[in-house]
Amino acid sequence: MPVGTLATVKAIDPAELRTMRAQMILSNAYHLHLRPGDALIRSLGGLHRFMGWDGPILTDSGGFQVFSLASLRSVSEEGVEFKSHLDGSRRHFTPELVMRIERNLGADVMMQFDHVIPGQSDETTARDASERSIRWLERCRAEFEKLDRDGDEEGKPYGAQALFPVVQGGIHPSLRREAALRAAAVGDWVGFGIGGLSVGEAKPDMYAMLETMDESLPRDRPRYLMGVGFPEDLIEGVRRGVDLFDCVAPTRMGRNGTAFTSNGRVNVKRAEFRADPRPLDENCGCPLCSRFSRAYLRHLVTSDEIMGLRLLSLHNVHFLVTLMHDARAQIRAGEFDRWSHEWLERYHAANTAPSRTR
Amino acid sequence: MPVGTLATVKAIDPAELRTMRAQMILSNAYHLHLRPGDALIRSLGGLHRFMGWDGPILTDSGGFQVFSLASLRSVSEEGVEFKSHLDGSRRHFTPELVMRIERNLGADVMMQFDHVIPGQSDETTARDASERSIRWLERCRAEFEKLDRDGDEEGKPYGAQALFPVVQGGIHPSLRREAALRAAAVGDWVGFGIGGLSVGEAKPDMYAMLETMDESLPRDRPRYLMGVGFPEDLIEGVRRGVDLFDCVAPTRMGRNGTAFTSNGRVNVKRAEFRADPRPLDENCGCPLCSRFSRAYLRHLVTSDEIMGLRLLSLHNVHFLVTLMHDARAQIRAGEFDRWSHEWLERYHAANTAPSRTR
Repeated sequence: MPVGTLATVKAIDPAELRTMRAQMILSNAYHLHLRPGDALIRSLGGLHRFMGWDGPILTDSGGFQVFSLASLRSVSEEGVEFKSHLDGSRRHFTPELVMRIERNLGADVMMQFDHVIPGQSDETTARDASERSIRWLERCRAEFEKLDRDGDEEGKPYGAQALFPVVQGGIHPSLRREAALRAAAVGDWVGFGIGGLSVGEAKPDMYAMLETMDESLPRDRPRYLMGVGFPEDLIEGVRRGVDLFDCVAPTRMGRNGTAFTSNGRVNVKRAEFRADPRPLDENCGCPLCSRFSRAYLRHLVTSDEIMGLRLLSLHNVHFLVTLMHDARAQIRAGEFDRWSHEWLERYHAANTAPSRTR
Repeated sequence: MPVGTLATVKAIDPAELRTMRAQMILSNAYHLHLRPGDALIRSLGGLHRFMGWDGPILTDSGGFQVFSLASLRSVSEEGVEFKSHLDGSRRHFTPELVMRIERNLGADVMMQFDHVIPGQSDETTARDASERSIRWLERCRAEFEKLDRDGDEEGKPYGAQALFPVVQGGIHPSLRREAALRAAAVGDWVGFGIGGLSVGEAKPDMYAMLETMDESLPRDRPRYLMGVGFPEDLIEGVRRGVDLFDCVAPTRMGRNGTAFTSNGRVNVKRAEFRADPRPLDENCGCPLCSRFSRAYLRHLVTSDEIMGLRLLSLHNVHFLVTLMHDARAQIRAGEFDRWSHEWLERYHAANTAPSRTR
């Protein structure tokens, strides 16, 4: 899922996302609640209509943003108090409020409000946050169902939406297993979020946790690995049973002049590109690679032209979406294991080769 | 002509320019000489191929940039010495060098290198600059023809290009008339540039000079009013016989959150747009107005989202290009005089109405 934090996948048009075969996008309850406001978006017909995207949307609950962007937060059983990163105003998020925000936005998939902790937290901290997240899941579910029955403040009904739990537990396998079982016991969920990974822990720890999750979560429900990730993380995740991902990396790195390519990660400002007439990635059919040279791209990016960061954002999102389409085709053909090994080998070899890391 | 200073019309794709029916674009010799370099662009097949635009291109000679952007300039009969606005490096532009730069870029229309002065300059200063520009025109023409015969440093021929003189003369009708006659005497030009207007002089002075130019320039050659302008300036220019215009206004104002509309100029951050579901301009068929609401546009622009400045840039360029197509149709129908009067009346009325100026 390309990320459209503020109801726009940065620098990319919804029509372009469709052309690139993106199937679903993510947007953020925290950011949209602060501005322009979820009630405003509801009054304008909901997020799909507001931003001109008619495909599925998932909204993050703000749990991650409250714990990463906001300041002076204090957690209680009731919820989280914090100061807005925009204007410093005092805010109070509870599971119930977050459900109303996500209902107002009208996303197809709503994420529960959860307690997010740093990736290296000890087991006591991780247990506390995980158990609180499960209690909050019960409150989220109750409010989600109440809003389904009662509609909004004017009694106007909400549309069909799904709620996903977020399974926490840090890097502690027993906590992860327990959280998965307890979350599954709270309801018959359409899918499951895997939270609290890619937040500072070592990669082997993340992979171990994904393997634990793969064993513990129902096999017939999609699993969504939140906030992940880079191309290699997506492949490693699919190998461990993950179905959905989201990450700001393709657009953020695009704005910073870095490209994902079939031969590893590339800084497009590199001097060798100065007079290079070839496309950035000869294996790519995106709007950048099918029409422009490395020399032109380098010129745009070194000159801080919007066209440069836009073309790179398009390329990076196209790269990840195409990678996932390829993975799906390989799974269907029964070739995913071999293909993913080869893919990872080539990608890592290129990234560690001297000419690629400079 | 939408302006693509650094080989890109800021935030707009060449394919979008085509869809909007833009016929010709402008790019800048000064900027492209400094970066990425005109020799580099030539080695990559020229400006059209470099930037992916297969329609006509006109290149400004750098005269205006040398006198507006660069610092510590000193003018002699030979040329202009100045410091680059990018890195402070010493540069020396002569009519001959500028011809080589514009030949390398490969634009369809090259502008002569001229001596640009402030709009309110006295007659002595204006006469001096105008006469120097005419002497430089003779040198430009000689070098332009020499390069046509000899090709580049490797003897490789240049393609078919046209050279336009730039008629100067400040706000002094006799100087303007004299400059027009003398420029016309130097060669059989395909078209004429009208320079040194919209550089700080009063609007009535600019209109008076355009009327003088209309009387003095050959009637069967296109006239290009350099660096102009806003929608109302275009209409006033066409009324006075101008055929070609260029201005950064549509993209620059788009990046700053201002829109041209059929009801005047609009700051899209205005509070009334907060919950407004209507398109920005109900008479417009651009990629912004045909798909998104004022509320969404305001949200994007107040949130500094690239999508906002991009959609506004598209809208503003679409607005000006469509305005010129409309003017052409009215001229063909013999209705231009009546139509342009009504158009100006409506546009000015909207811009001076209190609800529009806030």
